[in-house]
Formats: sequence, structure tokens, C-alpha cells
Amino acid sequence: MLPDRDFFFRLADAAKAETLPRFRTGIAVANKQDGGYDPVTEGDRAAETAIRALITEYFPDHGILGEEHGSVGIDREHVWVIDPIDGTRAFISGLPVWGTLIGFQSSGRAVMGVMDQPFTGERYFADGENAWYFGPGGDRQISTRKCETLSDAILFTTSPHIFTNEEAERYGAVEEKVRLFRYGVDCYAYALLAGGHVDLVIESGLKPYDVGALIPIIEQAGGVITNWDGGRPEAAGRIVAAGSKTLHEQALTLLSGL
Amino acid sequence: MLPDRDFFFRLADAAKAETLPRFRTGIAVANKQDGGYDPVTEGDRAAETAIRALITEYFPDHGILGEEHGSVGIDREHVWVIDPIDGTRAFISGLPVWGTLIGFQSSGRAVMGVMDQPFTGERYFADGENAWYFGPGGDRQISTRKCETLSDAILFTTSPHIFTNEEAERYGAVEEKVRLFRYGVDCYAYALLAGGHVDLVIESGLKPYDVGALIPIIEQAGGVITNWDGGRPEAAGRIVAAGSKTLHEQALTLLSGL
Repeated sequence: MLPDRDFFFRLADAAKAETLPRFRTGIAVANKQDGGYDPVTEGDRAAETAIRALITEYFPDHGILGEEHGSVGIDREHVWVIDPIDGTRAFISGLPVWGTLIGFQSSGRAVMGVMDQPFTGERYFADGENAWYFGPGGDRQISTRKCETLSDAILFTTSPHIFTNEEAERYGAVEEKVRLFRYGVDCYAYALLAGGHVDLVIESGLKPYDVGALIPIIEQAGGVITNWDGGRPEAAGRIVAAGSKTLHEQALTLLSGL
Repeated sequence: MLPDRDFFFRLADAAKAETLPRFRTGIAVANKQDGGYDPVTEGDRAAETAIRALITEYFPDHGILGEEHGSVGIDREHVWVIDPIDGTRAFISGLPVWGTLIGFQSSGRAVMGVMDQPFTGERYFADGENAWYFGPGGDRQISTRKCETLSDAILFTTSPHIFTNEEAERYGAVEEKVRLFRYGVDCYAYALLAGGHVDLVIESGLKPYDVGALIPIIEQAGGVITNWDGGRPEAAGRIVAAGSKTLHEQALTLLSGL
């Protein structure tokens, strides 16, 4: 048996019960890494625990790769890829552009996923064939915008500081050609791309759980998401997502070859 | 007679009726300036028209300074300062961090104001003495967070590209000292500061209508907002807002003197 939409939503609801009550409460933040600033909230950990408990109960033979609590059976046919709070910096800043990411892979390929933003009440879901939006403004099937040229495109990235010098040069070549670029939106940028509001997201240094849920949402909305070499994006790292194949190719020409 | 909360909310509701239905609809965007990219939506213009109509009806002897439709009687004792959609780039990107800003000045000083984010349903209001939040999570009086040192502070700015070279050097001196900085949030950053979620906002190149509504919200929440020389912020330009006097002084030491 494979998971259905009800199960994904149950997982998202379980996570929301742990994250939303802790949002904007000024809770303490622990440093996850020495040197860098990588905050993890109690909500992050509790949400992943809640998600994993449900998966283990209903799909005990599935593997799980989570940001907070490590991996179990990731060589299995079906693997869940979880980031309970993507955008922890947004979370601790009170900015509702973080999200709970729950992806599902079959034989190494991302096939289903949900991105949930509990504060705005927005949920993006890929059911294996189509992508859907649930939230303010009404529930609906979504599709990407077919922007065909960089000079018309809206580009998002988390921050210009996420790139190495060599990456920054490539990224900059795209940034200088687009109509508008913006920083600072984490997973919310990919959701906006899937919803047809923006055209391009470019990032680097991503982990598999940062994109596992977003890959099927973008692909099933008609978009293209790959690494900077044009390969499958499941392993993450350097990622480029576009609303149209043409735009993706134009960006890839400037980004590839590193 | 001076305006009360009900009147401010009526103005915000009138604006919302023009902005929210146009949000995320992929409407055409007009260029307001040659060369630069400064989009204005139909919603921007229609919202200001709706706001001005109500002000003119109920307070015909008040002056009005608006982003879209110019100024009337700005030498009068009472002047309204309006930015119908602050964060037009966020608006056209589908990102709910734009806001409707309606400020009210008496004798040149910002004394009341509202910041409304229609999509998230959040409204920040300064009544002349106190600052208030209305929205998800419950209505309440708000106060800024009393962060006392830059190394503990969360800093927001719209983009590192808004600064001139000399400004960027000063801004960078602050950025490198804070705990966490983020780009890309427009007026929403000031609202988060008033709400006690972030500690510092630094920007430049602002117009009076960009901050007119935000000044009283921040001040009446217990924060400090000035220009980079420490003077009153009503004329805008280079702005620094902080949750505490101590933090404001620390930032000002690094920013002032331009």
C-alpha cells in the first residue's frame, strides 16, 4: 500500500501541532553546528518525532531520512524524506515563509510530497500525477507559469551568501539577466514557483531533505528541477528550478560546467 | 475631530478590497520609472484612490501625501501619509510580506498608523499611545524585544543592493556583528520588529510614505526609529529601527557620520 493524500495531510497536521504553537513565542534556539549559525527549535525536533511515529506505525517497511533524527533504511524501495521546519531562520524571525517538507521516494525518485505553511494555512501537495494548492484563495490544481526568457523572469534565492565564489559568478550571470530577483524565502520560493507566481529558483548547498518534498510538487505542476549539471535533483547540492523547460535551459547554460 | 481605530480599519479594509483580489492573479505590471524596475499594480492605484476618497469625505481639511496620486495640503496640521502597497515586488512575486501603510501626522510628527497584510490577515496599529496586533494567534498589545547587544540581534533589510557603496560599508559593519541577518521583507520587517520578533531594521533610499505608518507603530511598541544621524525619521531616507535604545545606539555608532 502506498500513502495517499489523507496520510500526507495527517503527517502535516501532526507537525503543525508541534510547530505553530511555538512560532513567534521567542523560544530558545540551540546551535546545531559549531561556528555556523544553524538554529534548531524544539518544534523542529518534536515535529519530526511526530511525523516519524506515524510513518513507522503505518509503513513500518519504509525507510526514513530526516533532518533532525537521522536515517533508517534509506536503501529500501520506499523512503520518506523529511525536513520538519525548512527555513529555521525565518521561523525564529517570525517570518511565515518556513515550511514543513515531507517527501516520498520510490526507487530513489521523488514521487509525492507536501509543503505545509501552518501560519498562512497554505499547503502544496503532489499526489504522484498532479500538484495541488490548499489555502486562502481556494483549493486548486496548480501549474507553473510558462515564462520563456530570462529577461521576463522573477528569480528567487535564499541569500547571495550561500554561494561559493565560483558559484556566485555563475549565479550572478543569471541574476543580471532577469527582470526581478529576490532574496530570503527558503522553501516558500519553490512553492510560489509551483503555483505559477515566480519563474526561477537557484540555490546551492542543499541537503536531500531540503528538496525531497519540493521536487514532485514542481515537476507535477509542470516545472523542471535539476542540479546545475542538468541531472536528477534528489541528491540536492546545487539546484535550479524553473517554471518552463525553455527557461530552465537558459539558466542551465549559465550555471552548468562547475 | 481626530481619526480613531475604526476609521483606520475602515481605510485598511477599503484598500484590502482593491489589493487582495489582485494578489497572485498574474496581472500585468507597469513600469513606473524608465530604467529602474519599479512595478505598480492596478491594486496599488485603486487602493490609494479608495483610501483618499474616505479621507477626503471625513477629514476634508487634512492633507494627504500618497505614493501613487501625489500630495495635497501637506503643509496642513494633519497629514495622511499613504503607501497603498509597500513591497510591490513582493506583491507581484506572490509573497505575502507586502503591506498597506497608512500613517497620520500631526504638526509634522507621525502619531498614528496602520500596517495591514491582507493575505495573512495581520494588522498592526498605533493608536497614539500604544501599538496593537490583530491577526492569527490572537489580538494583543505589542512591545518590542529588549535585545541589548548586536551579537544577539536579528537584523532585516530589504536587499544589500539598496545601499550606495559608502552606505554599504556602514551597513556591513553592523551586519557582520549581528547574530542573524535576512534580506527581502519590506514593511513586514518593521512589523516583526514592533511585534518583538526581530531586533533591528536598517534601510536607505526610503520615501516618507515608506515609513510614515511604521514610525508610530515602532515607537508606541517601545522601539526607536531614526535616520542614520539619529534624527527624526519622518523625512525618511536612511532609516534605522531597533527594539531597544541600547541596540539603536550601538547600530547608530556604526551607521552615523555619512
